[in-house]
Amino acid sequence: MTAATEPQTSYVFQGTVDKPGLQVVGGKSVYIDVEKDGVVHKNVIDAMTGAAVGALGSADEDVFKIINEAARESTYSFCPLISNKSSEALSKFYIENSPEGAFSSALWLTSGSESNENALRIVRQYYLERGLPEKVKLISRESSYHGFTLGAQSISWNPRIEPFTPYLMDRKSVCLKMPPAYTYRFKEKAETEEQYTERLLGALEQQIIENGAGTIAAIIVETLPGSTLGTTPPPKGYLKGIRALCNEYDIIFYLDEVMCGTGRCNPNGKLNCWENYLDASEAPDIQTIGKTIGSGYVTLAGVLIGPKIRNAFVNGSNSVFGGNTYSGHAFNCAVALGIQKKILKENLTANIFKMGNLLGAKLKERLLSADNIAGDVRGVGGFWSIEFVKDRATKQIFDADLNVGPRFKQLCLENGVNVMGMPAFADGSCGDHALVAPAFIVTEDHIEEIYEKIVKSVDDLTSILKQEGAF
Amino acid sequence: MTAATEPQTSYVFQGTVDKPGLQVVGGKSVYIDVEKDGVVHKNVIDAMTGAAVGALGSADEDVFKIINEAARESTYSFCPLISNKSSEALSKFYIENSPEGAFSSALWLTSGSESNENALRIVRQYYLERGLPEKVKLISRESSYHGFTLGAQSISWNPRIEPFTPYLMDRKSVCLKMPPAYTYRFKEKAETEEQYTERLLGALEQQIIENGAGTIAAIIVETLPGSTLGTTPPPKGYLKGIRALCNEYDIIFYLDEVMCGTGRCNPNGKLNCWENYLDASEAPDIQTIGKTIGSGYVTLAGVLIGPKIRNAFVNGSNSVFGGNTYSGHAFNCAVALGIQKKILKENLTANIFKMGNLLGAKLKERLLSADNIAGDVRGVGGFWSIEFVKDRATKQIFDADLNVGPRFKQLCLENGVNVMGMPAFADGSCGDHALVAPAFIVTEDHIEEIYEKIVKSVDDLTSILKQEGAF
Repeated sequence: MTAATEPQTSYVFQGTVDKPGLQVVGGKSVYIDVEKDGVVHKNVIDAMTGAAVGALGSADEDVFKIINEAARESTYSFCPLISNKSSEALSKFYIENSPEGAFSSALWLTSGSESNENALRIVRQYYLERGLPEKVKLISRESSYHGFTLGAQSISWNPRIEPFTPYLMDRKSVCLKMPPAYTYRFKEKAETEEQYTERLLGALEQQIIENGAGTIAAIIVETLPGSTLGTTPPPKGYLKGIRALCNEYDIIFYLDEVMCGTGRCNPNGKLNCWENYLDASEAPDIQTIGKTIGSGYVTLAGVLIGPKIRNAFVNGSNSVFGGNTYSGHAFNCAVALGIQKKILKENLTANIFKMGNLLGAKLKERLLSADNIAGDVRGVGGFWSIEFVKDRATKQIFDADLNVGPRFKQLCLENGVNVMGMPAFADGSCGDHALVAPAFIVTEDHIEEIYEKIVKSVDDLTSILKQEGAF
Repeated sequence: MTAATEPQTSYVFQGTVDKPGLQVVGGKSVYIDVEKDGVVHKNVIDAMTGAAVGALGSADEDVFKIINEAARESTYSFCPLISNKSSEALSKFYIENSPEGAFSSALWLTSGSESNENALRIVRQYYLERGLPEKVKLISRESSYHGFTLGAQSISWNPRIEPFTPYLMDRKSVCLKMPPAYTYRFKEKAETEEQYTERLLGALEQQIIENGAGTIAAIIVETLPGSTLGTTPPPKGYLKGIRALCNEYDIIFYLDEVMCGTGRCNPNGKLNCWENYLDASEAPDIQTIGKTIGSGYVTLAGVLIGPKIRNAFVNGSNSVFGGNTYSGHAFNCAVALGIQKKILKENLTANIFKMGNLLGAKLKERLLSADNIAGDVRGVGGFWSIEFVKDRATKQIFDADLNVGPRFKQLCLENGVNVMGMPAFADGSCGDHALVAPAFIVTEDHIEEIYEKIVKSVDDLTSILKQEGAF
């Protein structure tokens, strides 16, 4: 720690506007150094890697080498007109490391938001190629998150989006919503998991039929939800059931794996999260990815395209309308390919699946067996959440003005661990929660450190809230 | 050239879907090497730098050094929660190199599309901060381009956007459109430039009044239009007049300088294009930028915020709702700052302004004084266009199926120069045109080479079209 100084003016328009808040000032492996008002907190263990972005942690010497070489070997071009070999190589790598036949093409953008925007464009053009312009409606979920741009926000829904409603697509005629698959809160006590799935799928089929299957373009789901609901895994048979409905009614099955994909939650040492729940023959038609593809070193994200979509284009106009200035950016793609090859070679996807599940199991066992504010601990592989409640039996959430999620994050930081803390929804449909998504390189010692610091923070916040009379 | 091979399968979902088209395989300074079907064309002079992106050209040794250092000094973080010093430094640099008082804050994103999406969010939140939720409508222009994502496409308009209408904001209630300021085609013969401006501004004021000034949020204009209309400079007094209307009716004055800004067209050796047309006191309230900020080496773009907007936030919630995963990306910002410092130090903004105007003047003089398909040559500084017509007197455009714009691009490539070729609008409101936007490092010899190759290509295409009986 160094001495505190007077906070200065901030020139960056994000977070708190007038003054700089927390800043990162260094990092190595799974540790980061952060500064606030001139005080530096060293060696905070990063259990969240930004927004579930970092796979290799900070300051990886191999990545520095990859960056240096990629810079020298890359020439910028506007890819829709003049492409490059790095974007081809990265596409081929992703396709070859996914189940056979799942994907046949990929498009590279610079953020998950852009990926979802481009995916929606592809959905639209796909039906135009097939002469079905009336297939327009998108069914996505309440309490979901697909990005920060206005198209991506239109298919999302959560309270943070509501102020922007005038600039979003209409929820009745275009962006239909179905309920989330949120076992902890919405599975009835009397229901089995399978019965809950059946109820959700039955309602979805009814929604398709009532709207007219001929008007439904795509069903859009986060394989494992990220920053809105906390990592609630799909109930048994849910994704298989959606795939079957998409097949039956000629609808695009579109999975968003921007947060949960690209090695974060894969059971086979590979890339896709859906391999936990679906066979190769049930792969999505469109899948968006991001985050760990560039591991935070470069700003890259993408859209994966199944053979059904690619074939319809090839048999139609064989061209994609327009393109982005930075699509298929040679340098970003070359760096990402180097990073992904390293991850595969060092078996780091398998490592995070094992280590993440170890962390999850430990947190679940310890937190849910003691008296504290943890109501649920859930997740898969390298992506876990803790949901906070006033009362474990009733699952009642804390008052929004108690700001439990963000305060938990702050307490964690004081205890030397970085997590993401999310507020509750005012309507009670989701409690405050915290997310963890460590780098793929974590060891058992790191897991132990994260575990201890999170448990201490839960216990600390429980005491504080009790003292405040919050419950 | 090497021997041609059979085209292979493409795994990238852009441009032509089934097979790879043109690929860049190398580059140095203002020259690039491109390959098609195994045949390499070496040393094509790049007069377009992708989509007006490259400022420093390819393979700049200083930039390699900047990249190497930036990688080692940057730690990824999710900036809305944990920011960094590089994004602050880049913001400060841009503010300090703009006219005094023009800007007071900046937000860094990864593409011009994302910048415009975020700018629209800022527009919305600005009026919510001020308790004016009914100020929602956006007035932008027909024949405009603000990006590829759905929100950015909603404020744009051109024929390529039309297929995506179901996913765009409503043109009647939200995204109003006004005519472009397109002197070559829409200034009446009997009008002076000032009278044309007066007519446009009169219609705009009427549109504001008829819609209710209390419902208008922002007027959005490309300072110098880019890829839709070709670089048609604003007629005298036009931007000043919009600024005055914005002041009078409490509307945000929002300029898009993603293509034309950041040194491409600045008369003072600095950054903003609007300095050609506006005083410091008339600066936009919001300005989006991109392209040359990272010169193609990194994928960066941004939103500049005037004091009026920043103050309303600071005096309100003092926080920006949410944020992007890659906003303020430390590595991208550090590289861009290094690039911008080099550009400033080497006076390259002044160079491209002078060299670009030299190229424009030479093209104008030669093309418009000879018998060919060039109808208009227009632009400012480092950004110029040639519009093609069947008949210079009537300004009649070529039939769309002649594909004159894209064919011109192809001919240029065969003649060893890279330009952008855009098709005509089928409704006749804009002819085929070609854009040029060379790197800031061009010398008089490069200008001469570009000039000669473009003139040859115009003459070649004129002959071919005559032979085909197109006119």
